[in-house]
Parts: sequence; structure tokens; C-alpha cells
Amino acid sequence: MEFRMESDSIGSKLVPSEAYYGVHTLRAAENFTISGLKMNRDFVCSLAEIKKAAAIANGEAKLFDKEIEKAIVLACDEIINGELFESFIIDPIQGGAGTSANMNANEVIANRAIEILGGNKGEYSIVHPNDHVNMGQSTNDVIPTAGKITTLRLLDKAINELRRLSEALELKEKEFEDVIKMGRTQMQDAVPITLGQEFKAYTSAINRDIKRLERSKEELKCINLGGTAIGTGLNANYEYFNKIVPTLRLITGLDLTRAEDLIDCTQNVDCFVAVSSAIKTCAVTLSKISNDLRLMSSGPRTGFGEINLPAKQNGSSIMPGKINPVIPEVMTQVAYNIIGNDITITMAAEAGQLELNAFEPIIFYNLFGSVEMLTNGVNTFIKNCIVGITANKEVCSNLVDSSVGIITAICPYIGYEKAATIAKRALKTGETVKDIIINEGILEKSELEEILNPKNMTQVKKLSKPKLSSRLAVV
Amino acid sequence: MEFRMESDSIGSKLVPSEAYYGVHTLRAAENFTISGLKMNRDFVCSLAEIKKAAAIANGEAKLFDKEIEKAIVLACDEIINGELFESFIIDPIQGGAGTSANMNANEVIANRAIEILGGNKGEYSIVHPNDHVNMGQSTNDVIPTAGKITTLRLLDKAINELRRLSEALELKEKEFEDVIKMGRTQMQDAVPITLGQEFKAYTSAINRDIKRLERSKEELKCINLGGTAIGTGLNANYEYFNKIVPTLRLITGLDLTRAEDLIDCTQNVDCFVAVSSAIKTCAVTLSKISNDLRLMSSGPRTGFGEINLPAKQNGSSIMPGKINPVIPEVMTQVAYNIIGNDITITMAAEAGQLELNAFEPIIFYNLFGSVEMLTNGVNTFIKNCIVGITANKEVCSNLVDSSVGIITAICPYIGYEKAATIAKRALKTGETVKDIIINEGILEKSELEEILNPKNMTQVKKLSKPKLSSRLAVV
Amino acid sequence: MEFRMESDSIGSKLVPSEAYYGVHTLRAAENFTISGLKMNRDFVCSLAEIKKAAAIANGEAKLFDKEIEKAIVLACDEIINGELFESFIIDPIQGGAGTSANMNANEVIANRAIEILGGNKGEYSIVHPNDHVNMGQSTNDVIPTAGKITTLRLLDKAINELRRLSEALELKEKEFEDVIKMGRTQMQDAVPITLGQEFKAYTSAINRDIKRLERSKEELKCINLGGTAIGTGLNANYEYFNKIVPTLRLITGLDLTRAEDLIDCTQNVDCFVAVSSAIKTCAVTLSKISNDLRLMSSGPRTGFGEINLPAKQNGSSIMPGKINPVIPEVMTQVAYNIIGNDITITMAAEAGQLELNAFEPIIFYNLFGSVEMLTNGVNTFIKNCIVGITANKEVCSNLVDSSVGIITAICPYIGYEKAATIAKRALKTGETVKDIIINEGILEKSELEEILNPKNMTQVKKLSKPKLSSRLAVV
Amino acid sequence: MEFRMESDSIGSKLVPSEAYYGVHTLRAAENFTISGLKMNRDFVCSLAEIKKAAAIANGEAKLFDKEIEKAIVLACDEIINGELFESFIIDPIQGGAGTSANMNANEVIANRAIEILGGNKGEYSIVHPNDHVNMGQSTNDVIPTAGKITTLRLLDKAINELRRLSEALELKEKEFEDVIKMGRTQMQDAVPITLGQEFKAYTSAINRDIKRLERSKEELKCINLGGTAIGTGLNANYEYFNKIVPTLRLITGLDLTRAEDLIDCTQNVDCFVAVSSAIKTCAVTLSKISNDLRLMSSGPRTGFGEINLPAKQNGSSIMPGKINPVIPEVMTQVAYNIIGNDITITMAAEAGQLELNAFEPIIFYNLFGSVEMLTNGVNTFIKNCIVGITANKEVCSNLVDSSVGIITAICPYIGYEKAATIAKRALKTGETVKDIIINEGILEKSELEEILNPKNMTQVKKLSKPKLSSRLAVV
Repeated sequence: MEFRMESDSIGSKLVPSEAYYGVHTLRAAENFTISGLKMNRDFVCSLAEIKKAAAIANGEAKLFDKEIEKAIVLACDEIINGELFESFIIDPIQGGAGTSANMNANEVIANRAIEILGGNKGEYSIVHPNDHVNMGQSTNDVIPTAGKITTLRLLDKAINELRRLSEALELKEKEFEDVIKMGRTQMQDAVPITLGQEFKAYTSAINRDIKRLERSKEELKCINLGGTAIGTGLNANYEYFNKIVPTLRLITGLDLTRAEDLIDCTQNVDCFVAVSSAIKTCAVTLSKISNDLRLMSSGPRTGFGEINLPAKQNGSSIMPGKINPVIPEVMTQVAYNIIGNDITITMAAEAGQLELNAFEPIIFYNLFGSVEMLTNGVNTFIKNCIVGITANKEVCSNLVDSSVGIITAICPYIGYEKAATIAKRALKTGETVKDIIINEGILEKSELEEILNPKNMTQVKKLSKPKLSSRLAVV
Repeated sequence: MEFRMESDSIGSKLVPSEAYYGVHTLRAAENFTISGLKMNRDFVCSLAEIKKAAAIANGEAKLFDKEIEKAIVLACDEIINGELFESFIIDPIQGGAGTSANMNANEVIANRAIEILGGNKGEYSIVHPNDHVNMGQSTNDVIPTAGKITTLRLLDKAINELRRLSEALELKEKEFEDVIKMGRTQMQDAVPITLGQEFKAYTSAINRDIKRLERSKEELKCINLGGTAIGTGLNANYEYFNKIVPTLRLITGLDLTRAEDLIDCTQNVDCFVAVSSAIKTCAVTLSKISNDLRLMSSGPRTGFGEINLPAKQNGSSIMPGKINPVIPEVMTQVAYNIIGNDITITMAAEAGQLELNAFEPIIFYNLFGSVEMLTNGVNTFIKNCIVGITANKEVCSNLVDSSVGIITAICPYIGYEKAATIAKRALKTGETVKDIIINEGILEKSELEEILNPKNMTQVKKLSKPKLSSRLAVV
Repeated sequence: MEFRMESDSIGSKLVPSEAYYGVHTLRAAENFTISGLKMNRDFVCSLAEIKKAAAIANGEAKLFDKEIEKAIVLACDEIINGELFESFIIDPIQGGAGTSANMNANEVIANRAIEILGGNKGEYSIVHPNDHVNMGQSTNDVIPTAGKITTLRLLDKAINELRRLSEALELKEKEFEDVIKMGRTQMQDAVPITLGQEFKAYTSAINRDIKRLERSKEELKCINLGGTAIGTGLNANYEYFNKIVPTLRLITGLDLTRAEDLIDCTQNVDCFVAVSSAIKTCAVTLSKISNDLRLMSSGPRTGFGEINLPAKQNGSSIMPGKINPVIPEVMTQVAYNIIGNDITITMAAEAGQLELNAFEPIIFYNLFGSVEMLTNGVNTFIKNCIVGITANKEVCSNLVDSSVGIITAICPYIGYEKAATIAKRALKTGETVKDIIINEGILEKSELEEILNPKNMTQVKKLSKPKLSSRLAVV
Repeated sequence: MEFRMESDSIGSKLVPSEAYYGVHTLRAAENFTISGLKMNRDFVCSLAEIKKAAAIANGEAKLFDKEIEKAIVLACDEIINGELFESFIIDPIQGGAGTSANMNANEVIANRAIEILGGNKGEYSIVHPNDHVNMGQSTNDVIPTAGKITTLRLLDKAINELRRLSEALELKEKEFEDVIKMGRTQMQDAVPITLGQEFKAYTSAINRDIKRLERSKEELKCINLGGTAIGTGLNANYEYFNKIVPTLRLITGLDLTRAEDLIDCTQNVDCFVAVSSAIKTCAVTLSKISNDLRLMSSGPRTGFGEINLPAKQNGSSIMPGKINPVIPEVMTQVAYNIIGNDITITMAAEAGQLELNAFEPIIFYNLFGSVEMLTNGVNTFIKNCIVGITANKEVCSNLVDSSVGIITAICPYIGYEKAATIAKRALKTGETVKDIIINEGILEKSELEEILNPKNMTQVKKLSKPKLSSRLAVV
């Protein structure tokens, strides 16, 4: 391999001749071998979008020659189009609040721009990573802004999957609207419900999460570009300062605005905690639904057996014919991972000191991971689970009939204590609640059937009910 | 002690004659001795408000006699006014999704109503805990609703304290607007800032948290009263169903609405996760501010020494004259407690199954605790810390002068690499950056002074700056 | 109320004449109103034990007069015996690494000792809180030591309950050793197991937790008394230094030793993280068992219905006769609380800076809370749940017979693929696996019965099995 | 691409002809696209080691022909040697308790063994993934065992790095033993300490973590191989059952033993919680040390400035000459990630149900990640930070001299209150404590110098000190 020599304040260092990155990147790659992974692709694009916007704004402010601007813009466009990704070699988990990520972008863009201008990599007098590519910027405004753009984009993908999930659940709601089944509270027989109502509740919950995630996007649209090192805007040219955010808005198509308090926006990362919290809350919902599906599909013979999840793969290497709820299981695992990530993000946010939070890299690593896992998890949840769920209508119906929980519907007519006595007897003797009530002459058969009509039990209806006190006297 | 005998499905049991609570409460008190604490006072009031609303709604639906309604309402009013609190004997951490709390309320209200109607405690044929006080309700709609009312009230107190904090910080922002000091990123000298700007950033962050908490209140205004056991509204009379929420709205003065999907609203508790998340995010901000204050006030002789926190108590039992930042320390501890509580709430929410989340009691225990601790912590933070902070203006100013960080302001004129060389030399020889620049003839003294004018360094100003490329050639 | 005037570096302040506490305590009480609770009783005793040991050690070192020593010892003994507790008025959540708690003890003991010596409260020239009661000590060695003594004592209570739980589970193991039931993996029918084996597994898990907790006690026996402010032992007299730990060992009866590295032991609180982790791990086990019990007792008609938990209270305010698994539910809630506490403890430990961790109060608040809740939770778990569990032997047996999971036992004879085909057919047609195998002539009836003998299926036995390959050819 | 057709209970599916994996793996790869990553390399090796041991044990039990045994062993050896890794295509985050990972191994090994025996991939009548490779095993004993082997190996690497860290810190302890500096508690000047003592405390803490991690390995040596599906050992041949663990012990060189209670060991994963907790506790220590290093190296001009961390890369893209503590920053970020992972692991462990914990994949994903990040983080911490730390001896010494904290050493001679008065005066007037004491004639100069001799202040020494009471009278 051939090398070129590069220098910085730390000293001189050989950089592979072909490398678009430079000495800073190389040092950082040596300092940080933590996860062994590469930075998020969307994040690298976001960096290029910012650098492009800055080049244009600085160019408009006439802070450097037009050809430099053009070369930087071209280099950025290549990265935005997915090229040069292999030149981003830094571990996403890195010290220094993202300086290494920012410098990796600065160096790659500078060297590519130098090439475009006919120079050789490393000839930084033509285009300089700090003086030109990073002009008017600091890691401390570039990195949080890139993190916000990336998260906004990833969130849109996640929300899109959640919308599709909501629709899939809604179809099931309709499909199962006539499947009457037993409701359970605290895992004990409660009162009837329809399977459609169960899925409607899931839909409602997911819709609420979508709203929360949509709202959480607002947290991210306020950026600190122009604030430079600590939000005071030191070294940002006045014209650049006014142009950078509108320019970036155009390039990204995102509704970005400059923070009113740039110092606050540079040092505080609570917006990411808020977004992570919204994702976490969604994870709670998804895991709850998954757990319910695992319960309702438990069996096939010794469990609830109310629904069937689609068989996606053999469930066991030893137990033939076993099919497991692998998709809800992976959904729940994604949820647990997201909840753990939220703690990491929370701790990193709390640890910020004075003018900067040095721990942004671990925040982004976890936040991007959370959103992407959410997206992927929901994708398989829809495709490989929800759409294929079927109901065991007869099982559901039989369980309602055998249950004593329907005694609750009789309660307003005979009072809680009498009803409890009947329930106890039914459980002891194996009689059905219906039989006892009719045999004991407590209610007329027709009256009872009206009361126990499943549709009446699963909705609030105008039923004429006598005043309790008068009935209690009778019983 | 004298006793009366009470019975339920479980069997008979002696209850102290004087007790307003009954057999269910007593059993629950024996089953749950976990925290050794009593339920939250506001929560008990909320329960009474709900019972009062239900009595009125059931009364209007003519489901029981007017005198029963009146007696129940009177009993509830006593509880709302703070009486009978000693009759609420159940541990806040309890199994059963709050059935014990609900029954404690039902029994106390029933027995007090019986007394009002001239009966003796335990004569449940007069007013029955389940059939009358709990009519049309279930633990599963009462308890989440009470939890929401309580949290809304507690949140208002917290938000009020945060508003006061914001004002206190804003006063400091003005007081310190001329105190120029060194900004630090990653604990290393960065570029100048004013102490006022620091406090402005704190104000901005707190204001954002206030907005989040205000918004989170919307999560709580949607209640499931009328849904009874599982949200299907079984046993809720149609008239009652339509009246209960408007009646409760009147009684509480809160802008409550009935959930569109009562089944969802009964089984899902994500709203509490969302509220806890907003509190947690606020905790992150408060701890970050506290940590900054501890850093800036570190010393008095061997630390940063930029500000003084008011001396509130001797700091040490062994080190005379030592004053510690005890108030920020307690603020941070409150934050850590809130973050831990958030995990408990998250786990409890995720563990909900099918038609109910059985773990609401631990959610409320932690959520109420979080909000109250936040309120109390912020209260002492304002009173015993923020308002008394003073600045060591001279120390701050000297640190700026001695720092090499101001080299950054020179950077646009001479380029990053040359600037780095000067910075390195300054650090090595002890010269000031200013002296080197003037001695080396890099800039004119007047030009330099204009650049290094603190006000210029802490704001984006219209300064005419030459194009970098032309200057770079010179250097 | 009458007052006396006390002074310290902060200034003068009126203290109620009757109060044993002094000016420091009063200031701290005003500074910290966070939880509204009082400090843990065991913790206050531990403080008194340390002060007693210090008085004796200082007395033996002849650092003060014998009568002062005696008076301090007497005062401490009163506290150890449970008196004067109302004089400890500080909130357990306090800034200052416990200085307020330590000073509360110093002042109460000094004033009580003054009384014993015939003086009036506040006459600190007779016995001084700092110079005498706190002699040779610092908050920074007293408080962690008191925290360790308290935790050791609380842990012993918890371990005792866990031992009782283990015994109760073992009794059930024996009681249910002949109850054959279906094992489930991933909520799907797997292969047979006995109910006794289930409870044996719970016993094994709890025993492992007991071992972990016992081992975690070793973390706490190493104390830093003698290290004073930062572990360098400044102001600790050499004789005192050598006597204090042995004296405290005698007083407490605990196997305490002086840390080899007192500086480390003063600033690092990882031992509490380790103990909290062991408690958390135990909480995981307890919640898993609780969740299993709730699953196996689900029903009574529409769930697994394999076991019955004792009915401890009515399960519902609206659903008559409903009995809920309230005790496992509270056990699980305790577990969630402990897991949340662990995060708080972890964050507080991580936040220690340089020579001290200022956040010990929140660590202790959560750690003591975790251990006490564990103790209380397990206590009710044993008494109100485990000992009363009964099995539905017939239900269990019927579920095994109806299950297709037993096909697994046939697998070694016919190969996985053939077995899977049979399982699929059984599920589809409703035939039993046994019938298919016999009808198809796959195995002899007697051979099959030997294979499917439950005892053979639940243990590894010496059964002669033909080589698979030869059999595969046949099928 | 060419394909072969494979079938299972789910149906038929085209598998790339060249693929060693089969239909199960392919389905799983389609079901789970969550992290986009591959399984851990060590984990894949562990699987192969288990399969090899099982083949030998089954072979010795004469359950299949010798040539099958040999072929399987050969195939496993190839994997152990790092070959065929690209055939492991399943996402580490997967539903199904690891069935997909196990089947991926079974299929790859079967197909490779088939090739070795001269067959074509897919000819499972020669060697069958389930019937031969998985013989006597279940996912439920294979996967936890593989997880334990992997964790043991990863832990050894981590412990090795921690040992190297301990040695590096010890060298610094010696290097800095004469650097006297100010100790700080709660960020406020306390009493003197040596920089060597600081590093000794770090060494002590790390050594304690090493012990904890070593001890935690014991949790992992107890395996459930032989227990098959649920720990009852169904389908495990008696001879195989007795040979499998000893054989695996030989192959791995690890001190593995069979669990006494295989059912417990199959369903409970608390051992991983315990190991994760030990890693988390170590993370707390590492972050605390990192935070201290960032504090002590804060500056260079406006911070504590007591030590210098080696300059590893430019600290800023905008601020020339800035060097940041990037290595401690990344260490702390690793710690936060580990703490978040611990929550995920805890939740997943708690969620286990009945005979199995379905969430092992997310446990391993996080646990392996935690150990590897710990290893990598500590590696860079040693190499790029600790070994290059230098002390600013003069700065340290000047800070001690200027501090009023040394008043504490005078306290035993003059009492706390008098000392506090002097401290206050010093702070107010700027006098040194020494000057005040000598000018006021409180102590003789020689006596004072002896007391304030740094070596005396940083160790407990035999100094003759007068009784306090007699001195107090004088003052």
C-alpha cells in the first residue's frame, strides 16, 4: 500500500494514498474500536447535506471562491447519492461529541473536492477540511443537527410501518367483529368481549403511539446550526448565519428552524430523550399486544387456543409439529432492547456538562438503533404475524358459555352478594350460571337470554333495568 | 376493642366496630404490608370525587333512592375535605389492580353514608359498598380515572414550581448578563460566553420541559369511566353512562372526556408511561443544571470558583468552614429517583395482559412519587439555591484572559493550522495568545481588540471579514 | 414553644428548647423536604452503634474524659434501644452525602449526653457534637459504614424469608410429585412434566438467589471507619484508628473488617451496586415464579386451570365470585420496584466524583427500600399464596392426554419428519397421537405405553432404544 | 442462481443449491431482519463445539454409525476453525429462544457432513439436521449452553484487559506517589491526598471488579445439556446423557458441570442477569474513574489542570489546539451502553414463562455486546489514556498551599468551631490558614509545620496529640 504524509497538531502520520479520509480520521479510527460497526448511512448523508448547505451559504457570503463551493457541493452530492460510504471508517461509538465523525466528513469531502478541482488528495491548500468544508461550523452544531435530520428520516420510516400495522389491525377488527370470546382481567375469567374489540383496542393504542411519534418529531426540527462551538456563533459570518438554516431546509426538504436559544440548543439534548421516550412508549404497546397474542394463541391443546398465528417456521429442533409464536417473541425482544436503549440515552443526556454534551455518539447509536429496530420489528410483525391471524370461533364461544364470569351481567338484578353465592356454587358443582338462575327461578328464561345476549354484554345499551333496591328486597 | 362481624365470599371476619372500612379492606390490609405507607391523599380524594359523581349520575338515572344518593354524596364530601383519611389503611403497593383501594373507598363511604342515614356501620342493606357506592363502576374504570385525576393535580403543582424556577433563572440571567466567562466543552476551555447566557440556556431548557409536561396532561384527560370491568360498559346503565363523565368534570373542575375506545383505555396504561417520560426528561434537565452549578461553584480555592451557591448548612462534620452544594446534590438525587421510577412504570405497563393491567398500583406509587419529589426538589432548588447564587466576576474575567481558547476567534483570519500552532506555543511557553499575535505581527492591535471584544465573541455580529483564501496566502 | 439559640458558621438560629437535635439538623430539615419520610430506623441504630464504638475507642485512646465517654455511650444505647427516634427529623433524601444524618446523630447524642452529665441542651462545651461525638470521624466514613451495617441487618431478614419460601416451595414439590402435567415452552404445548418438578425448579432458583445474597453480604463487611474525610485518616488518632473497627465489631456482632484501601472504600460505592444487583436478580426469579403461578392458575374456566391459588380477598368490586391472583401480582410489582431502584442506585454510584460519592442518601433510600420490600413481599407470598396452593390433578392429566406434544417421545423411533406429519394430522383431525400411531401400526401398543409412561417421559431412564438409522429405514 | 427444493412441516421452499444452510434457516432469515447483523462468531463456534460433543456422545452410545459421527465432527471442526461462518445468516435478534440459531447450525453441519460422506447438500437421509446433528438435544439445552460457553470466553478476554488496566494504574500509582494534591469531596476543597493514592484507589476498585467478574464465571459453568426440551431429558439416551457434559468439557477446555436441577437450569436465566450485573458494576467503576480523569485534566487554563491526558487527536473542528479527553469519554459511553443493556437483559429474564425463556436471543445479543464493548473500551482506555497520563506536580502543590481545607488538620488542636472561624476569615481576607494560625499565636510554627506536613496529612501516623478538652480550654 502507498501512503501520503499528513500532519496536525498531534504530529505527522502516514495515510493510505488512496484514502479520502485524512489524518484526523485515521487517528480516530485507531482510538475507537468499540462496536466494530460503521456509522449509520443516513447519518453520513445528513452530514453531507449539512456540509453542502454550509458551502452554499458560505459561498453566498463570498467567504470563498465559487469553484471551491462548487467542488464541495459536488463531493457532498456524491455522498448523498450513497457513494464514498466506505470512506467513513469511524466507529459510531466514539469520544469527543462527534468531532471524529465531523472530521471524517470534512476530510472526505475536502479530498474529493480537491480531486474535482484537479489536485491530489492531501493538498489541503486547495480545499481545507477545517477552513473550507467546516467553515462557519463546529462539531457542536453539525453533529446534533445531523442527528436530528437522521432521526427525522428514520422516524418517518417507523411511523409508516406503524400506520401499516394500524391498518392491518383494523382489518382484523372487522374480520373478528362477530367472534364473541371471554374477556380476562388479571388472567381470570371476566366478562365477554368480541375478538374484534380486542383488535380495535390494539388499533387505538397504536394510533395513539403514532400521534406521539409525530409530535415528537417537532422536538427535532429546531436546530443549532450557526451557533458553532457553544451556541454563541463565534466565527459564523453574519450572512452565512442567516442563510445556513434556510439553505439546509431546501436541501433536506425538512421543516427545520433555527433555535431561538442557540446556547441551550447546543448543550442540551433533552429532545433526544423525549423522542426516545416516545419510541419506548410505543415499544410498551407493541410488547403488550405481542404478549396478548402469545396468550390467546397458547396451545394448541393445553392453552387458551382462541386464535392461531400463522406458522412461519418449525418451532422446535426436537418437538415435531411444534409451532411457536416467534414473531411476537421477536417484537417483544425489540421492545426490551428499546427500553434498555432509552436508559442509555437518558444517562448520556444527564451527563452533559456546561456548554456541551460529550456523549452524543452513544445517544445517536442507541436512538438510531431503536428506531430502526422498531421499523424492522413492526415490518415482520405485520407481514409474518398480524395479517395471517385466524380465530377459533367455536373455541371462543364455548369458553364464554362455560364461564361463570357472565354472572356479572346478572348482578344489577340480584345484587353483588347473591350473585357471588351463585358464582361460587357454579364453580363448585360444575353447573352453569344460566341453569342455576333458571332452576332457582331468579329470572325468567327470556329475560335472562336478553341479558346474556353477547351483543348486549359487549356494548352499553338502553336496557330497562329496575331500581336495584326494589329488586334486592325480592331476592 | 369491640368488633362487628362481616362476611364476604371468602368467609366471615371480625372488623373493629368503630372502623369505617369493612371486611374487604381488612383482608387487603392483611394481604399487603409492603411499603408500610398509606395511599396518597390526593388519590383518596380523587376516589371520593368519582364516587360522588357516580352517586349523582346513578341518582339521576333513578337507579336508587334520593336519600341514598345524598348520603353517599355527603360522605364523599367529607373525604374530599380531608376527613376520614385514617380509614384508608391499605398499602399503596397492592395486588389486584387497585380493587383493594376501590373497595376501601366503597366501604368507608358506605359505612359513613349508613351512619348519615341513621344506621350502624356494617348494615349494608341500607347502603351497600358494591351495589350502591360502586354502582355502574368497576375497579377497572375507577382506579385509572382516579390515578389520572391525581396525577393532573400533582402535575399542576409541579409545573407551578417549574414556572417559578424559570422566573428565578431568568432573574439570574439578567443579573449576570455582563459577567463574561470562559465556556467549556468536554471540560476543556472553549470560547467565551456570559454567565447570563448560561442561565438563559437553563431557562430555555426548563421552559421546554414545562411545555412537555403541559402537553403530557392531555394524555390524562381521557378517562374510561362508564367502561366498567373491561371497557364494554357491562352493567353501566345507559343514562348513568352518559352522565358520569360530565358530572365528574363538574366536580373536579378538570377538562375530562370519555375515551372513544373504552376497551383500549381500560387495558392500556401507556398514558402514564408518556407522563413519566416527560417527568424523566425534566429530571434530566434539572440534574444537568445542578451538575453545572456544582462544577461552576467548585472550589472555593481549588476549583472553577466562578459562582457561589448560598451557604445553607455546614458542609462537613469534620472539615470546618466547608460549604457543600447540598441543594443541587439533592436535586440530582431526585432526578435519579425519577429515572428509576420511570423504569418501574415502564415495566409495569409492559406487563399488562389482555383486558387489564394488574400492575397499576405500582405505576401510581412511582408516578405520584416522581411528581411529588419533583415538586419538592424544585421548591428547595429555587429557594435555597438559585435565588442566592452570586458571581465571582473577576475570577470569571481572569480565566477568559488567561485562556488560549480565544484563539478560535482569530482562526477565520489566519486559518486553523496556523492558529493551532499559536495555541500550542501559548500553552507551552505561558505567553498569552494576544501577545503572540501582536508580537508576530499577525494582526494589528486594534483589529485584534475588536475581534477579542467579549461582546463580539459571544454574539453573531456583522463584522467585515476578508475572504479566508486571500488571508491564508498572507500567513 | 420555647427556644434556645444555637450558632454555627452559617449564623444563629432558634432551636426548640426541648429538641435534642441542634442547629445543623434544623437547617437540614428546612433544606430537605423531599420524600416527607423519616430515615430508616435500622439506619439510625447503626449510626448510634458507630458513635458508641467511636466514644469507646476515643476514650481508650484517652482523647477525652471517661465521663464524657460514658455519657455518649449511654445516649447511644438509648437510641439503639429505640428511644429518641422522633429526634431524627431529617428526610432520608438529602444533599451532602449524609452530613445531615450524621450531624443529626451527633447533635442528638451530644444533647442527650449533656443531659446525662447534668447540663442543659445546647451547652456544647460539656459535650460537643463535632469535637466529641464525631471525634476521629467524618460523615464520609460514618455514613457508608452505617449504610453497610443497616443493609447487612436488612439482608438477613430478607434471606430468612427467602429460606422460608424455599422450604414452602419444597413442601409443594413433594405434595405435587405425582401430578403429571403438560410442560409448555413459548406458551405452546411441549412435553410432560410433573407439577412437583415445576416447584422443585422454583426451589432451586430461590436457593441460588439465597446464595447470591449471602455472598453479596461479603461486599458490605469491609468498612472505612478510621479513614475520616477522604480515607487518608486525617485527624484519626492512631490508637483510635486501630481500635474503632474491632470495637464496632463487638458492638454490632457483625464480622466487619477495615478496608485495605480506605481511600477507595470512601469514594467508591460499587459494593451497593453489587448488593442491589443481587436483590434485583432475586426479584427477577420471584417475578418469574409469580407470573407462572398466574398462568397456571388462570381460569377458572377459560384458562389453564392447573392449580388454584388460595382465595385471599374478593377479586372484583363488580364481578361477583371473581378471585384474582393478588399475591403474585404484588410480588411482581415489588420486583418491578426493585428493578427501578437498581437503576437509581446504579446512576447514583456512577455519579461519584473524586474523593466522595455525594449521592449516598439516594442509594440508601433505594437499597433499604428494595430489601425491605423484598422481605415484606416474600412474607406475604409464602403465607398468603404458596402454602395454600392446590393442584387440579385431573385437569393436568387430561391436558397431557389431549396434547400432541407427546409425539416428541416417539421421535427417536420414527424420525423428526415422520413425527411432524403425525402431529400435524392429529391437530387437524382431532385424533390423538396415540391412536394414529397404533392404527398406523407404527409401534406396538405395549411399546408405546412404555414410551408414553409419564414417569418415563419426565426423567432420563435407561431405555433400550434402537439405533435411529435402522428404524428410519423401516418407517 | 441455482436452487434445490427443501421441505418441512410448513411446506416446500427453494434453497440456493450452494447453501449449506437449509429450509429452516432460510425461513428464519426471512422472518427476522431486525438488527441486520450476523450472530457472534464465538457463539457460532460454541454451537459447533456442542454439536461435536453430541456427535461423539451419541456415537459412543452407538446411536448412529461411526462414519456419521466422524463426518459431523469434521464439519464441526471446520466451523470451530472459523470456516463456514458466512453460512450463519440468521439475525442475532430472533424469535423462538434460539431455535433458528440451533437449526442454522444443524443444517450447516448436516450439509457439510453429507458432502464429506459424498452426498449432495439436501440429501438429509445421509445426515439429518434434526435426527442426527441435533440428536439428544433441543434448542432449549443447546442455546443456553452455547451462550454460557461464549460468555465465558468473552469474559476471559475482558478480565484480561482489566488485569492490564489494573497494572497500568498501579504503575501510575507509583509514578505519582509524591505528587501531593488537594482532595475534593462534593467538588469542594477537602484535605490533601497524593495523586498516587488516587490511582491506588482506582486500582483497588478495578481489582474488586475483576474478582466479581471471576466469581460471576461460576454462574456460567453449570449447564443443562442432556435436559433436552424442558429439562426432563426426554429423548436423551441414558449413555449420551452421562457422556455429553464430560465430552464437552474436554472439547472446550472449560470446567463445565451438569446442573443438578435441569428443569430449573432450562427455564431460568438469572445466571445471565447476575453476570450482566457484574459487568454493569464494573462499568460504574470505569465511568467513575473516567469522570475523575476528565475533572482532574480539565483546563488547560480554566480547569483543575492537575493532570494531562495524552493528546490522541485534535479535539475540535473549529477550536485550534483544543485537546479533549476523548478516551475517558468513550469509556463512559461504553458504561452507559452496558447499563442500558443490563435493563434489557433484566426485562428479558423476567419475562420467561413456565418451562422456557423465549427471550434468550436478546439476552445474548446484549450480554455479548456488553462484554465485547467492555473489552474494547478498556483496551483503548489503557493504551490511549492511562499509560500516557502525566502530572502537573507544581499546580497540584500550589492548590494545596492555597486551600483552606488544611484547616481540618488543625481542628483536633483547637476544636471545630474555632477552626471554622479561621477558615471563614481566610476565605474572606485571602490570608492563608497557616499565616492566621501563626500570627494569632494559636500554634508554634514548628508544630504547625509538623501537622501540615503533607505526608502526615495523607496517612494515619502516631502523632502525640493532647486531649481535646484541655486544649479547648486554652483556645
